[in-house]
Amino acid sequence: MDYQSILREIESEVRDEPKWGKVASYIPELGNIDPNKLGMHLCCFEKGQYAFGDSEERFSIQSISKVFSLTMAINLIGTEVWQRVDVEPSGDPFNSLVLLENENGIPRNPLINSGALVIADILVSNLEDPKKDFLNFVRKIAGRDDIQYNEKVAQSEKEWGFRNAALINLMKSFGNIHADIEEVLDFYFHQCALELSCSELANTFLLYANHGKIFDTGEEILTTSQTKRLNAVMLTCGFYDEAGEFSFRVGLPGKSGVGGGIAAIYPGNFSVAVWSPRLNKKGNSALGMLALELLTTKTGLSIF
Amino acid sequence: MDYQSILREIESEVRDEPKWGKVASYIPELGNIDPNKLGMHLCCFEKGQYAFGDSEERFSIQSISKVFSLTMAINLIGTEVWQRVDVEPSGDPFNSLVLLENENGIPRNPLINSGALVIADILVSNLEDPKKDFLNFVRKIAGRDDIQYNEKVAQSEKEWGFRNAALINLMKSFGNIHADIEEVLDFYFHQCALELSCSELANTFLLYANHGKIFDTGEEILTTSQTKRLNAVMLTCGFYDEAGEFSFRVGLPGKSGVGGGIAAIYPGNFSVAVWSPRLNKKGNSALGMLALELLTTKTGLSIF
Amino acid sequence: MDYQSILREIESEVRDEPKWGKVASYIPELGNIDPNKLGMHLCCFEKGQYAFGDSEERFSIQSISKVFSLTMAINLIGTEVWQRVDVEPSGDPFNSLVLLENENGIPRNPLINSGALVIADILVSNLEDPKKDFLNFVRKIAGRDDIQYNEKVAQSEKEWGFRNAALINLMKSFGNIHADIEEVLDFYFHQCALELSCSELANTFLLYANHGKIFDTGEEILTTSQTKRLNAVMLTCGFYDEAGEFSFRVGLPGKSGVGGGIAAIYPGNFSVAVWSPRLNKKGNSALGMLALELLTTKTGLSIF
Amino acid sequence: MDYQSILREIESEVRDEPKWGKVASYIPELGNIDPNKLGMHLCCFEKGQYAFGDSEERFSIQSISKVFSLTMAINLIGTEVWQRVDVEPSGDPFNSLVLLENENGIPRNPLINSGALVIADILVSNLEDPKKDFLNFVRKIAGRDDIQYNEKVAQSEKEWGFRNAALINLMKSFGNIHADIEEVLDFYFHQCALELSCSELANTFLLYANHGKIFDTGEEILTTSQTKRLNAVMLTCGFYDEAGEFSFRVGLPGKSGVGGGIAAIYPGNFSVAVWSPRLNKKGNSALGMLALELLTTKTGLSIF
Repeated sequence: MDYQSILREIESEVRDEPKWGKVASYIPELGNIDPNKLGMHLCCFEKGQYAFGDSEERFSIQSISKVFSLTMAINLIGTEVWQRVDVEPSGDPFNSLVLLENENGIPRNPLINSGALVIADILVSNLEDPKKDFLNFVRKIAGRDDIQYNEKVAQSEKEWGFRNAALINLMKSFGNIHADIEEVLDFYFHQCALELSCSELANTFLLYANHGKIFDTGEEILTTSQTKRLNAVMLTCGFYDEAGEFSFRVGLPGKSGVGGGIAAIYPGNFSVAVWSPRLNKKGNSALGMLALELLTTKTGLSIF
Repeated sequence: MDYQSILREIESEVRDEPKWGKVASYIPELGNIDPNKLGMHLCCFEKGQYAFGDSEERFSIQSISKVFSLTMAINLIGTEVWQRVDVEPSGDPFNSLVLLENENGIPRNPLINSGALVIADILVSNLEDPKKDFLNFVRKIAGRDDIQYNEKVAQSEKEWGFRNAALINLMKSFGNIHADIEEVLDFYFHQCALELSCSELANTFLLYANHGKIFDTGEEILTTSQTKRLNAVMLTCGFYDEAGEFSFRVGLPGKSGVGGGIAAIYPGNFSVAVWSPRLNKKGNSALGMLALELLTTKTGLSIF
Repeated sequence: MDYQSILREIESEVRDEPKWGKVASYIPELGNIDPNKLGMHLCCFEKGQYAFGDSEERFSIQSISKVFSLTMAINLIGTEVWQRVDVEPSGDPFNSLVLLENENGIPRNPLINSGALVIADILVSNLEDPKKDFLNFVRKIAGRDDIQYNEKVAQSEKEWGFRNAALINLMKSFGNIHADIEEVLDFYFHQCALELSCSELANTFLLYANHGKIFDTGEEILTTSQTKRLNAVMLTCGFYDEAGEFSFRVGLPGKSGVGGGIAAIYPGNFSVAVWSPRLNKKGNSALGMLALELLTTKTGLSIF
Repeated sequence: MDYQSILREIESEVRDEPKWGKVASYIPELGNIDPNKLGMHLCCFEKGQYAFGDSEERFSIQSISKVFSLTMAINLIGTEVWQRVDVEPSGDPFNSLVLLENENGIPRNPLINSGALVIADILVSNLEDPKKDFLNFVRKIAGRDDIQYNEKVAQSEKEWGFRNAALINLMKSFGNIHADIEEVLDFYFHQCALELSCSELANTFLLYANHGKIFDTGEEILTTSQTKRLNAVMLTCGFYDEAGEFSFRVGLPGKSGVGGGIAAIYPGNFSVAVWSPRLNKKGNSALGMLALELLTTKTGLSIF
């Protein structure tokens, strides 16, 4: 069956699902989103691009941005990154603070909040104009010059960011934050407020399916080895404490965000992004996970 | 045996102890203290005052101040205090953050850092000029007009207070901090930087041995019932995760501070304060605990 | 007001309370008890004995027996006991297994299940005929020759004792259980199945109010110092994770059991036992705690 | 470069490594093994079999057997397995008991001890002659009729199995163990005492690289979908709390055992087994992990 037919089937099956799950509401700006938005975009190496629904509408990518900041940090300082964060699944939604206490301020992995704050600290410490430089970096791998931070979302995150402030202060007490706390938080809240569409996300994630090279230009951002390792981290750590479940059901490295987006890849084959704002209890897009599970089931394409 | 002889024996036995334990060094201002300082002061209801050593020298009372802020909070808002903090021992030195996460931002008790921050929040929210009003309150129950905050210590605490900043931000994320975080921290760091001598501490603690009334003036600060409850909290929670050990060895309600001070009381009988800056692994004055154990052993006076 | 009037008032107020709380049902034998049973017995050093309700009816004392086994262990091997268990509050109802893992199989204190199993191990290792010898020991301090184990309850505990089996196996893996696991469990399940009335419990607890001497015979079971320490442990650890609350509200050393009994003492003054099978969420008798709070409030007699 | 040369290089580089790590010693039978044993065996779908060192010598496969028991359980009762165990990484070496308490006796995944005990319970409950039937099952997928349990190892495990007894009793208290505890433990200790060589292990694991079909006979043991899910579980959970590290460095689904063995697969391509008894701190074969990392680095073959 061709990909277009498969996506049509997925759309139909997903739209038939009961409407359950809740839009993220911890900041007002996210709570206002239409819960029925649904979009999907697939980029195949050999067979082109396929999409349905709201795949061209930009949304708040939130934690998916952690993959981009990690990419930039590895690009800047290489393996030194792994002296500041570990690569193990965190196992528990609520225990980042617990684990930080037990493990001397070294976050479990770079894709949970504490780890992403350390990565943000690395970028703030190594970039001249962190917010601008990071935005340009994402624009380059996306191949889109008009990607922006949503300033209202960034501001809203800051006003409600007490938990992230707790995390970064705790890590600072262990010496694992080097730059100024306020500056790192400001950078982090902007990073999470990036807006991309499914189409743009899928095309950006082609980098990780393409051994670290930008697909259109061939420019190497990460080495093959760095890319494999980053993909491994996405698989084991990309879905909070539901990484095992995602790996079990979908079988692809990927990353989710509380904005309802998920991006995933099959190395050497394709990248895909999906968006549906209703979240399951673990904070991942309920219909997004289903759409991706249907994709790997119907195509038979998973890394396992 | 008379109290003067008993104190002389205690001094002699304590001075013969090997010099072990370390002065608190998490802020430079505390690390500079002479580790060999040693003082003790006993106030008996019926038999007067007894002392030895550096009992008239002021030192940083640190966490002992939590008893005074709790007293003022109960004095201001009564039983409402107990809707914001619990009265259970914390059980673990390192788990304040853990417990806060598991218990929705309600600290285990008002005598650990998280609980004392909530008490500080209550004072900041209810006082016109919090730092000044609290200082006057302590001066009143101490009967000493010249008690002061050590501004250098307060400043040093602030510069190294990342862990307290983590605690207060986490509680704010649960809605259990109402005032401005910076203002509460500033108040808290000043509160901890109060300086009193053993003589002054013992006389201030007479309040708790005297059913809540200032001994010299008879002014009621707490009711008898409020005092009993506060004393119970001191006994079960006053020594971090060594409350059981202190109760077991000494058998008196009390509170310790990382400055090396301990104050304790025997309701209806006496109050006592001791100072020796070397701390055991649990953060309590090693020789201070010994001196108090000798006191209750030699006098036979303990609440059990 | 005389004690008889006070007890009459307590009975009246307690009987007026709404009927809430649940009878322990983890073993069928306990679940069959009449939830409305209510009895109280007070033994005053100078003023005799006072009682109301079902104070002469025997019930399953369950964890209150931990005080007796601890007493016998101290009587047998003295301070060595404290090398096998600590004296700190456990802080958490569910974490005995957690704490055992983190603390190398040393229980937090002898009054939680893990600690009482270690004490049982000490008795089994040091007594010729452990069940018989322990029964005789309790009979002696109770001054009653007909106290018995309820064999049906002991049997029922054994059949449902998987959690205790988990605890003892874990401690054995750390080397803190010396005797045979099955024998220790059998002893422990019998110990918990002891049956005493409020009247008998209060008279037995006179020992702890009387500095370790049996009140009627003057025989010394514990030294004054040992008694003080045991009383301190009761205060900080006698009520699971509600020790702080009990100390706060009642202010007496004591011990509760899931059979609905509570025994408490005021050193040098009185001992008291109360029985009401409905338990609060923390596993302590709801009305029993209220009755004791009323007693210390109305008499003004608490250790604080 | 051909596989034979690559294996020769791996052997040479691994033999040059400093000798570090310790042989498992928690039971005497395992502690007696020669720490310098080293073997590797690779089965490629298209290019045959390659090996070096002690690849034909049988050793105690220990936890690698968990993959076989899980396979048999899925084969017997299908998706029902996942109602008894979850599929999430455990995150912590020491917390299985903690997690069991917090998660009502449902183990995090079937490849840690608690989960494997539940799987053993499923087998014991569903097989007529559990130990014999399981042995025959392993023999069938291995294509070897003489695979055996080492009875001395099984006996030794039983004698020192207090921690596993703690785990199974705790799960029984939550109702997640149905069969008799002693029978399940006996089965489990035998299962862990299976002995296979690298050559046999690699050939057995071909099943998982071959979509669930026995390579030589074509018999389907698991469906393609079941196999993918089991492979996903191996990747996220197969290496205790080092699953992230193994995925990061090696990038293959696999399973390790404290006997020093590791088996891993690349779906559709190859299976591989390695044996070196010296373990790193996390309990995985130190040189085994290195050998596999060299294999994926030199061949460029990883699932990422």
